[in-house]
Amino acid sequence: MKKIKLGVIPGDGVGVEIMPYATQVLDVIAQVHGGLKFEHSWYPWSCEYYLEHGEMMPKDGLDQLSQHDAIFLGAVGNPNLVADHTSLWGLLINIRRGFKQTLNIRHAKQLRGITPMVINPNGFDLIVVRENSEGEYSEVGGRIHSGEDEVVVQNAVFTRKATERAMRYAFELAKTRKGHVTSATKSNGIVFSMPFWDEVFDQVGKDYPDVEKRSAHIDALAAFLVSKPSEFDIIVASNLFGDILTDISAAVMGSIGIGPAANLNVDGSYPSMFEPVHGSAPDIVGKGIANPIGQIWTGKMMLDHFGETELATQLLNIVEDVTEAGIKTPDVGGKATTSEVTDEIVSRIKQ
Amino acid sequence: MKKIKLGVIPGDGVGVEIMPYATQVLDVIAQVHGGLKFEHSWYPWSCEYYLEHGEMMPKDGLDQLSQHDAIFLGAVGNPNLVADHTSLWGLLINIRRGFKQTLNIRHAKQLRGITPMVINPNGFDLIVVRENSEGEYSEVGGRIHSGEDEVVVQNAVFTRKATERAMRYAFELAKTRKGHVTSATKSNGIVFSMPFWDEVFDQVGKDYPDVEKRSAHIDALAAFLVSKPSEFDIIVASNLFGDILTDISAAVMGSIGIGPAANLNVDGSYPSMFEPVHGSAPDIVGKGIANPIGQIWTGKMMLDHFGETELATQLLNIVEDVTEAGIKTPDVGGKATTSEVTDEIVSRIKQ
Ligand SMILES: CC(C)[C@H](C(=O)O)[C@@H](O)C(=O)O
Ligand SMILES: CC(C)[C@H](C(=O)O)[C@@H](O)C(=O)O
Repeated sequence: MKKIKLGVIPGDGVGVEIMPYATQVLDVIAQVHGGLKFEHSWYPWSCEYYLEHGEMMPKDGLDQLSQHDAIFLGAVGNPNLVADHTSLWGLLINIRRGFKQTLNIRHAKQLRGITPMVINPNGFDLIVVRENSEGEYSEVGGRIHSGEDEVVVQNAVFTRKATERAMRYAFELAKTRKGHVTSATKSNGIVFSMPFWDEVFDQVGKDYPDVEKRSAHIDALAAFLVSKPSEFDIIVASNLFGDILTDISAAVMGSIGIGPAANLNVDGSYPSMFEPVHGSAPDIVGKGIANPIGQIWTGKMMLDHFGETELATQLLNIVEDVTEAGIKTPDVGGKATTSEVTDEIVSRIKQ
Repeated sequence: MKKIKLGVIPGDGVGVEIMPYATQVLDVIAQVHGGLKFEHSWYPWSCEYYLEHGEMMPKDGLDQLSQHDAIFLGAVGNPNLVADHTSLWGLLINIRRGFKQTLNIRHAKQLRGITPMVINPNGFDLIVVRENSEGEYSEVGGRIHSGEDEVVVQNAVFTRKATERAMRYAFELAKTRKGHVTSATKSNGIVFSMPFWDEVFDQVGKDYPDVEKRSAHIDALAAFLVSKPSEFDIIVASNLFGDILTDISAAVMGSIGIGPAANLNVDGSYPSMFEPVHGSAPDIVGKGIANPIGQIWTGKMMLDHFGETELATQLLNIVEDVTEAGIKTPDVGGKATTSEVTDEIVSRIKQ
C-alpha cells in the first residue's frame, strides 16, 4: 500500500467550502485504485486564524508541514486584510519560499462541456511554468523622504540559477508535448532584468535544438493568450508575469474557478504544495456554489507528481464527462452546487 | 484660423503605411471645419533610420520636435532590433521622458460594427490612465557576478509626485464620466511599491468623496478586463500594469489595431505625443491591410486635446458609421484595405 501523507490547509472563503469535497474525491479514487491511500492532517491556518492569533500559522508551522509528502492548499485571502500583505506572505509565500517551491506549474486547456471565454475551434492546451521564488516578488526595497517628496524603490532580484531552472523545466516539458516554448519578456521596457531573462532563454535554448523558441512581450502575450490560446504550448514566465498570465489562462478556460496549480520543490528536499489558481472568492462564500474543479484538478496534478499518471488522466477525464453532462456550477454556466458536482464525480469514479 | 503644428513620425512597419491616411483624415476634417489647419513636418526617425545611422533620431531630435504643438507617431519597432531596447528607448521613451509626457491615456470602447473579443450585451467604455514616466520602467539596476552565480537587480522607482498626478487625473476624469476609478495593484506580492501605490490611492481618493473607489490585483484585473469590461470606467495603473492592461483592452475591443493613445504633457511645457496602442506589426507589412482606425482614433484624441471636442466626437462617430457599414480591415472581420477604409471615412466627412 502506497501511503501519501497530506498536510491539508483549507485556508479562507471558498477554500474551506471546497476542501472536504476535493479530499473526498482523492480518497475515493485511491480506494478504487486499491493500492493507494491518502492520510490527511488538517491545519486551520488562514486569515481567519490570523485575525484570532495575530499570525497566519504558528512559529513551528513549516516544521509541522515538513512531515508530509505534500501540502494541499485551498485558498488564502480575506478582504479585511487586503491592504496588508503580511497575511499572504505569512502563509502562502512563506511555504513557497521555506520549502523551496521554486516553480509554479499551471495548466490550462479547453475542457469538454465548458465554454471557453473566446470560442476557439482548435481548442487549446497550454502550461505556464512560472518562476516562483524571486523576481518581482523580492522583499527588497524601501522608502525615502516623506510627503510630496516621498520616493519608493522596489527591487526585483533575478538570479541565473532560478531563471535557468525555470527555463530548463519548460524546455523539458515541451519535449513531452507540442515542442514549443514561449518566453514572456518585456525587455523593451524593463531594461535590466528582462534583457537578462532573454539572454538566459537563448542560452538554455541552445541545449534544446529541437524545441521551437518564441519570445513575446508581456503586453502582447496577455492579449494573445485570450485571442489565440491554441498557439501556445509551454509559456515560461517570471513570478509576476506568470501570475498575470495564469489568471488570464484560467479565465480563458471559462472560469478562474477551474485553474489548477502545483508549487514544485524540484530537488525533493521539501514537500511540494498544490493549490488552485483561484482565490478565496468572498463574493460567493456561503452559497454552496463554488466550483470544486480547480481544487480537484489540482489534486490530479498531485497524482501526476506522485507518479500516478494513469489515475490522474482518468480523474480529469471523469471531470470532463461530468461537465459535458452539464453538471456544472454557475460560474461555468450550470446550476449545480459544489456538492452536486462532486457527488457526480465521485459516483462516476466508483462505477 | 487656428493652426496646429504637428511633428509627424510614421516610424516603422504599418506605422509608415497608415500615417499618410491618418494625416489625410485630419486635414480633411480641418478643411470641413474651416477654421482649423494642421501643418505637418515629417521625420523619418525609426528603427530603419537606426539601422542606417546608428541612432534612432539625431542628437538635436528633441529640439526639432519641440517646435511643434504635438507629435503624431505611428509605431516603432523592428524584429531585427527586438533584443535591443536601445531602439525604443532612443525614440519612444526618449520623447515620453524628454517631453515630460507623464501620463498615457488609452481609451477602449465597444465600437458599432466591430465584434468585441467577448460579446458583452452592455457594451463597455473605459479609459486607462497609465503613469508614463517612472515605475517599473526605470533605468536603474545592474548585474553582479557571472556564470551560474549571476544576479541581476532591477529597480522600480515610484515617486509620490508622479503617482499622485496619475491618480488625480484619473479621479478628475471619472467625475466627467461614470464616476468610478479602479486602481491596479499587486500589493499582495510586490511589497514596497504597491502598498505605497495603495496608500496614495486612498489618500488622493479622500479628495474625491463622490467618486467610487475600487482596487484590484493586476492578475485578477487582467482577467476581469476580458470577462467583464463593462464594469470599468477609469482604471489607474503603473507604467507596466498600464502597458499590459491597454494591450488587453485594445484586444477586447476586437483588435489591437484600433486602440488609441495619448502621451500627455500635463503642465504644457512640451508637446504631447499621440500614438496608437498597436506596434509596427511586421507580419502584415506590405499587404495594405493595416487597420487605420487606431491611428485615426488617436487623431481624435489629439482633437480633444486641442479643445476641438465637437469635431473629435464627430470623427469617431463617422469611424463607427463606416465599421457599421461593414467597411473594415481583415483584423476586425472585414475585407477592406487601409485605403478603402480611409476613403470611406474621408468621403463621409466631406458629406
Ligand atoms: C514599446 C514599449 C516600450 C512600449 C511600452 O511598453 O511602453 C509599448 O508597449 C507601449 O505600450 O507603448
Ligand atoms: C496571493 C498572491 C500573493 C499570489 C501570487 O501572486 O503569487 C496569487 O495571486 C497566486 O497566483 O498564487
